[in-house]
Amino acid sequence: MITVQYAARSDRWESQEAPLRDAFAAAGLEVDLRRDHAPETVDYVIYAPNGDLQDFTPYTRCKAVLSLWAGVEKIANNQTLTMPLCRMVDPGLTAGMVEWVCGHVLRYHLDIDRSIHTQDRWQPRVPPLAEERPVTVLGLGALGQACANMLATLGFPVTGWSRSPKSLEGISCRHGSEGLQQALRDAEIVVLLLPDTAATENTLNRETLAMLPRGARLINPGRGPLIDDDALLAALDSGQIGHATLDVFRIEPLPADHPYWAHPNVTVTPHIAAETRSITAARVIAENIRRGEASEPFLHQVDRNLGY
Amino acid sequence: MITVQYAARSDRWESQEAPLRDAFAAAGLEVDLRRDHAPETVDYVIYAPNGDLQDFTPYTRCKAVLSLWAGVEKIANNQTLTMPLCRMVDPGLTAGMVEWVCGHVLRYHLDIDRSIHTQDRWQPRVPPLAEERPVTVLGLGALGQACANMLATLGFPVTGWSRSPKSLEGISCRHGSEGLQQALRDAEIVVLLLPDTAATENTLNRETLAMLPRGARLINPGRGPLIDDDALLAALDSGQIGHATLDVFRIEPLPADHPYWAHPNVTVTPHIAAETRSITAARVIAENIRRGEASEPFLHQVDRNLGY
Repeated sequence: MITVQYAARSDRWESQEAPLRDAFAAAGLEVDLRRDHAPETVDYVIYAPNGDLQDFTPYTRCKAVLSLWAGVEKIANNQTLTMPLCRMVDPGLTAGMVEWVCGHVLRYHLDIDRSIHTQDRWQPRVPPLAEERPVTVLGLGALGQACANMLATLGFPVTGWSRSPKSLEGISCRHGSEGLQQALRDAEIVVLLLPDTAATENTLNRETLAMLPRGARLINPGRGPLIDDDALLAALDSGQIGHATLDVFRIEPLPADHPYWAHPNVTVTPHIAAETRSITAARVIAENIRRGEASEPFLHQVDRNLGY
Repeated sequence: MITVQYAARSDRWESQEAPLRDAFAAAGLEVDLRRDHAPETVDYVIYAPNGDLQDFTPYTRCKAVLSLWAGVEKIANNQTLTMPLCRMVDPGLTAGMVEWVCGHVLRYHLDIDRSIHTQDRWQPRVPPLAEERPVTVLGLGALGQACANMLATLGFPVTGWSRSPKSLEGISCRHGSEGLQQALRDAEIVVLLLPDTAATENTLNRETLAMLPRGARLINPGRGPLIDDDALLAALDSGQIGHATLDVFRIEPLPADHPYWAHPNVTVTPHIAAETRSITAARVIAENIRRGEASEPFLHQVDRNLGY
C-alpha cells in the first residue's frame, strides 16, 4: 500500500479525489489517498502552492512532492523540501494554453477587435496571410514548445527564444541575450511563456520593449514578473507597443486601481489561459508514483538550481 | 503565342498584371496578355464576376474561362459560356480562409468578446477544452475541408456536412438532409462554407436553425444566400442562436439600414474572410493554361449541372 497525502487546497479535493483514485486504479497502484496522513508515513505528497503545507521537514520517508501546478517558483527554494519535486505538465493544461495563445494571436493577426468595435462601416481591409506575420514565443518549455508548434502549423513564421540553446523543427530558435534582440526585432506579436525565476524577471523592460518593431502586440499567459509594468505602460502610451493581452500579474487578482484595467490598449484576462484539468493531471500524478515505485526517473522533475 | 484576355475588373489589372506575366514566364508559356484582344482571337479568358464581360458568344476559339474567384454562381448558368469554366482554388485564398475561420472559432470558444467588453472585473471562468466543443462545418469543398482539418488539428471534434457523401480522416462526415440534422444537433459553433447554388439557398432557415443546441454560434464566410436572414434575426432575438459573425451578404456592401449592423449579437465583417492573392492565383491560372495547351484535364473545372 502506497501512502499518498493530498496537500493542495481543500476546496479542490472534491473535484480531484475521484479522478486521482481512477488514475491510480488504471495504473494498477494500491494507494491509501488521504488529506490527513501522519507526515512520517507519507510516500508521496500531492501539492499545490495555494495549500497550507510549508514545512516538509516531518515528511521523512517521502519519495517525491508532486505539484499540481506548472509553476513551482513558490516552493522551488523551500529549504525543507529536500526530496525530488516534480512540476505538473498536464496535457489538458497544455491543450488549453495552446488554444488560448492561438486564439489571441489570431485575434491580433485578423484585427478582430476592430471588427467588434466598428459595427457601422463597410471598410474592407483584408489581413495579410499568417506567413507574412512574424510571431515570437519567449520560453520554449513544454508550454512554449506546444504553442510555437501550433502557431507554425497555422502558418506563422515562429521564432522561439530560451535561456539555453534549443533546436525545434520548423521554429527559428534563439537563445541568450544576443538571441533575445534577434528574436524581438521582427516580432509583430510576442507571446511570453518563460518560467518565473530571478533570471527571467523583467525580461520585457524599457530596453527590450524598444527592440520590438513599433506597434508590436504582446500576449502574457506566463507569469506577471516577466514584465516591467511601468515600462510596458510607457511603451503602450507611446505607441511602441500597440496592444497587450495580459492574463497574469504580480498581484492577483489585479487590484481594481491598477492602470492596466482602464488602459484602452490593454486586455486583462483573469488568469484563465490555462488551468490544470483534474482528469489529465491525475494521470500524470499516477504515472510519477508508478515511476517512483519502479525506481524509474520521475517525469518533469524540477532542477532546483534553475528553479524549474 | 497564346492569346489571353484579362476580363476581370479594370482596377485590379495594375496589381495582377505583373504576377500573371511572372507566372506565365515561370511556366514556360509564351502569352500575349491584354485586356483588349479581338474576342475571336482569344485562347483563354481570365474572368471575375465583377467585370463587364457577360456575353461569351464571340469567343469562338476560347479553350477555357478561368475565374479569379472561388464562387462562380454568377456565370455558372450563363448560356453563352459553352467552353470549360474553372473556379479559382488559390492556396493563398485557402490559407486566409483557414486563418479567419480558426480565429473566429477560437474567439467564440474562448469567449474573447467577453474579455474585450468586460474590462473591470476579475471573474475567472476557464473555458472548456476544444475537445469538449463540437464544431460543424457545412460544406466540404476545398475551403471547407481545409478549415475542418485545421479545426481538428486545434483539438475540436469536427463534423462536416456535404450534399454528396465524403470521407475525411479525423472528421465525422455527414451528407444529405438526414445528415444535416445529425450535423447540427450537437454543434456549438457552425461554419458555413457551402457553394451558392439553388440547392443550398437558405440552408439555414427557421427549421434547421431550430435543430442546433440553444445558444449555438454561427460563422458565415461562405455566401449570403445560404442563410434566411429573417429566420436568423428571429433566432438571435429568441436566444436560439447566441451570436453570429457574418462576412457575406445577399447585398454587398451590407445596406446601412440592415438590422445586422445594429444587432448586439451580430458581428458584421466586410467580405474579408478570404481574398484571392495575386501571386498564388496567377500560378493557378498559368498551370491551367499549361494544361490546356498540353491537352491535360483542367484543375478545378466547374460541373455546370452542380453549379460549382
